Order: sequence, then structure tokens, then C-alpha cells
Amino acid sequence: METLSENRCFGGVQGVYRHRSDACSCDMTFGLFLPEETGDGPVPLLWYLSGLTCTHENAMTKAGAQAWAADHGIALCFPDTSPRGEGVADDPEYDMGQGAGFYLNATQKPWTPHFRMWDYLAEELPTILDNGFAIDPDRQAITGHSMGGHGALTLAMSLPGRFRSVSAFSPICNPTDSDWGRKQFEGYLGSVEAGRAHDASLLMRESGFDGPVLVDVGTRDDFWDLLRMDTLADAMTARRQQGQLRLQEGYDHSYFFVSSFIADHLAFHAEALWA
Amino acid sequence: METLSENRCFGGVQGVYRHRSDACSCDMTFGLFLPEETGDGPVPLLWYLSGLTCTHENAMTKAGAQAWAADHGIALCFPDTSPRGEGVADDPEYDMGQGAGFYLNATQKPWTPHFRMWDYLAEELPTILDNGFAIDPDRQAITGHSMGGHGALTLAMSLPGRFRSVSAFSPICNPTDSDWGRKQFEGYLGSVEAGRAHDASLLMRESGFDGPVLVDVGTRDDFWDLLRMDTLADAMTARRQQGQLRLQEGYDHSYFFVSSFIADHLAFHAEALWA
Repeated sequence: METLSENRCFGGVQGVYRHRSDACSCDMTFGLFLPEETGDGPVPLLWYLSGLTCTHENAMTKAGAQAWAADHGIALCFPDTSPRGEGVADDPEYDMGQGAGFYLNATQKPWTPHFRMWDYLAEELPTILDNGFAIDPDRQAITGHSMGGHGALTLAMSLPGRFRSVSAFSPICNPTDSDWGRKQFEGYLGSVEAGRAHDASLLMRESGFDGPVLVDVGTRDDFWDLLRMDTLADAMTARRQQGQLRLQEGYDHSYFFVSSFIADHLAFHAEALWA
Repeated sequence: METLSENRCFGGVQGVYRHRSDACSCDMTFGLFLPEETGDGPVPLLWYLSGLTCTHENAMTKAGAQAWAADHGIALCFPDTSPRGEGVADDPEYDMGQGAGFYLNATQKPWTPHFRMWDYLAEELPTILDNGFAIDPDRQAITGHSMGGHGALTLAMSLPGRFRSVSAFSPICNPTDSDWGRKQFEGYLGSVEAGRAHDASLLMRESGFDGPVLVDVGTRDDFWDLLRMDTLADAMTARRQQGQLRLQEGYDHSYFFVSSFIADHLAFHAEALWA
């Protein structure tokens, strides 16, 4: 593993690291914020999954999460959103290919063998963090924005016991019934049907999450119709899922929205992680 | 004036606006955060001047200042760092020309007539804000990073009564005796000597600032030798300037440093602005 940068930040260290990924068969880069408390032993970890077009860097520089992670003594991991590199397939559109991995394992060419973000995040990167940093694997939580909210919700519900809490900003909630989802499932998985295991609203109806859920969305979200918050709301109420769905008046899909409520999300996860 | 974007942010609005600048003879873009309290009447204003290579956007997206500005009910203005555009002179190096205006009025070709950032910030933009937004011109403060710290300190000391408080992150403190300054003064003003009126350490010795000063710098600043913090420290102690100079252990020159201490700076200015 190569250290690309380490900057002192809120008493801790914001690092950026690159490593060879077996899951994605390419080099992958991630950001990791370790709070000052890491010096005293393993700390809880909050994953932050990013949205379409993002790299490991967007949330790391724009969400303002480190301030509150430092307050709560929690580490933050900012993975990339897809495999990358010259030999990795891509698409001319922003919503497919590099920067748009959709947090799944592709089964279709040209996306195999690199597009295996599910395995990367469910297995490979957690092991790397556990081996290389003072992270407590028994205290993990997950959040994300937009496509990353989709990733956070689907990983959390599909890996019972892994995460103590899950939250999301403006998540893609029902990709099997949205233009943010149908195209990608057809491309990566061969059919929309094959994407049902990666649909947060369907997972919520089927299994839900054994812990608290927090979802924020702006009432002026630029992509409101694509997110399908209605289906997640239906699914949460149908199963009486412990959680909160908050519609924030006047906010949009941007990082100005995410940063406005990141303190709430860190406090929410801290309560679960330190319980 | 054209509205390029307005995003709801911490209960207020983060706007980006473009206007024709008479001072710089080109279009100029600035960011303006207005807290929720703006709806009730004029609010105090904190200027944030950015460093080399930056636009209006860097601090607006990476410093995390809006969280605390909202808490304190203070507006934030993020001006650009130079005139820009096709007809505007530039330099192949990052430290001269577009993105490197050094907050002065150039007197030498090819930098005249566009490079007049001093007039732009001392006169034109304040008038535009005063006319167009609910800003209280009697409650202004100023801060900045690196070249912007130089701008904040020199504007504050050269315009007595304008600002109630001044702060800076990693400022260029003694440009007449640094490679960040000598080249630029020779180019923009014709001589290093002509830059003496834009040297924070010289101004501190000559006149100081009638109010509190806060300066933060990281002990691992990548550009330590160029900043010449020693000369500002000497000047502040020589005149017993009211203020604080803080050397922050292990921090560097990046926005991870700025964001780590932005809350302190907002609290510092809020105390002066609301006094």
C-alpha cells in the first residue's frame, strides 16, 4: 500500500492511500480520516460512499465530516466509486463506467472483471483497513450520498450484523424503477431483474435493517424523480423500520446540502457506535 | 449582476454571482453566503480572501466556514483572486497573473489595466454588496489564506476603521523579502520597493491594526520559508499589537489545516462583529 498524502486535520490525520485491489483487478485509492484517539487504540469506523462522478476525494474535501468525526472519536473511510485506469471499461455517459460503479459486482462484459465494487467494499477494503489501521471492526457504520446512499443502504441491509447504523443523503432508493438504475443493472448485470438484490426499497420490504436508519433529502433536490424517495418511505412504514426520513425544506442535491446536515449524521452514528 | 447558482446551506443561501467590474475591466465572480438571519435585516460580513491558484470556489467548498457563519449569523464573501478572461494577461507560472493577483493595483504592462484587485476589494465589491444584499457595512471583518492572508492583513491595516478584526491562515507576511512577493512586486509594480505598502510586516511595524489580530500557521507548513512568519511575529511584538499568533503542531498549508481551525476564526470575528 502506498501513501499518497497525509495531512493533519482536526487533531487527527486525513490520509489518502493507493493499493492493488484483487477484487477490482486494478489499483484503487481511498481516503481515511483517523481521529487523534487512534493513538490510544482501535476506533469506530464510519464508511462514506460517494455519488456518480465522484472519486475518493469529493466528500473528503467538501462534506465537512472530519470536524464531527474528530469530536466523536470516529474514523472515516472514503472509498472510490468505481475501478479506474487505462485497461478499465468506461462509458461516454457520466452515469455508467468509471465513477459510476453502483456498488455491485458486474457479470456482463465489458464490465467484468474490474467492476466488483460490492466485493471490494464488503470484503477486501475492510480487511485492508483492519490489517493496516487502528480500526475496531466490531464498531462500523455506513453512510453515503446519492448513488453512495444506495450503496450504503444496500450494503447495510445485505450484511446483517456488519453495521450498527446506516444513513444516507439523497439516496437512490428504487433503482429497479428509475433511470438511475435500470440502465446500469441492464449493463452491469444483464437485466433489471438481476438488480433486485441491489434495490434499497425492495430490501427494506424484504428484510429491513436491524438498527437505526436516518435518511435526509432536500425538497428541492434536482434529481427528486430519479431518487424515488416515495418507495423507500412506503417500505419503511410498511415494515415499521426503526428510523427517520427527513425532508429538508429548500435544500438541493449538492454538497451544500450534505455539509449542512453532516453533523447530525455523525451524531446519529456516534450514538450507535459508542453504545 | 448575474446569479450563477444559489444553494440552500446551513439554513441560509450559498450564492455565486458574476458582474462586470469597472475596477478590473472584466467580468468577476464571487461567492456569498447569507445566513438565515439575513431575512430579518442586515448582517455582519466576513471577507475570506483566497490563495494562489484559487478562485472564488475553493474556500467556499472546502473551508467549512458556512457552518460557523450560520451559527454566528454572519455573511461570508469569497472573492476571486485575480481578474480573468481571454483578454486578461497571464503568466506560465502559478504565482503570477490569473489566480495570483496579490491584492494590489498593477502599474506595469501587461498587467494594467485589469490587475486592480485592491480597488476591486477596497471599493467596488463592498459597494456592490452594500447595494445588493442585506449586509451591514459597519460590521465587517476580514480573513484569508496564504496570499489571501497577505491580502487580509494589508487591507485591514491600510483601511483604518473598515474592519473590526482581522485574521489569517498561513499568510505571506513579508513579501518584499520573499520569493512569494519580490517577483510579483517587480512584475506588477515595477520594483520591490513599490511593494512596501503591501507588506504586512512593514505595515504592522508602521501602523498596526486597531483591533484584534489572529494568525494561525502549521508547524509543518510546506511553504514555511516563503511566509516569513518570523518577521510578522517580530513586528507584532515590537508594537505590542493586540492579537494572537498560533503555531499549530503538525499542520501543513492545506485546506485540511484551514478547516481544522475555521471555527476558531469565526468565533474570533463574531466576538468583534457583534460587540
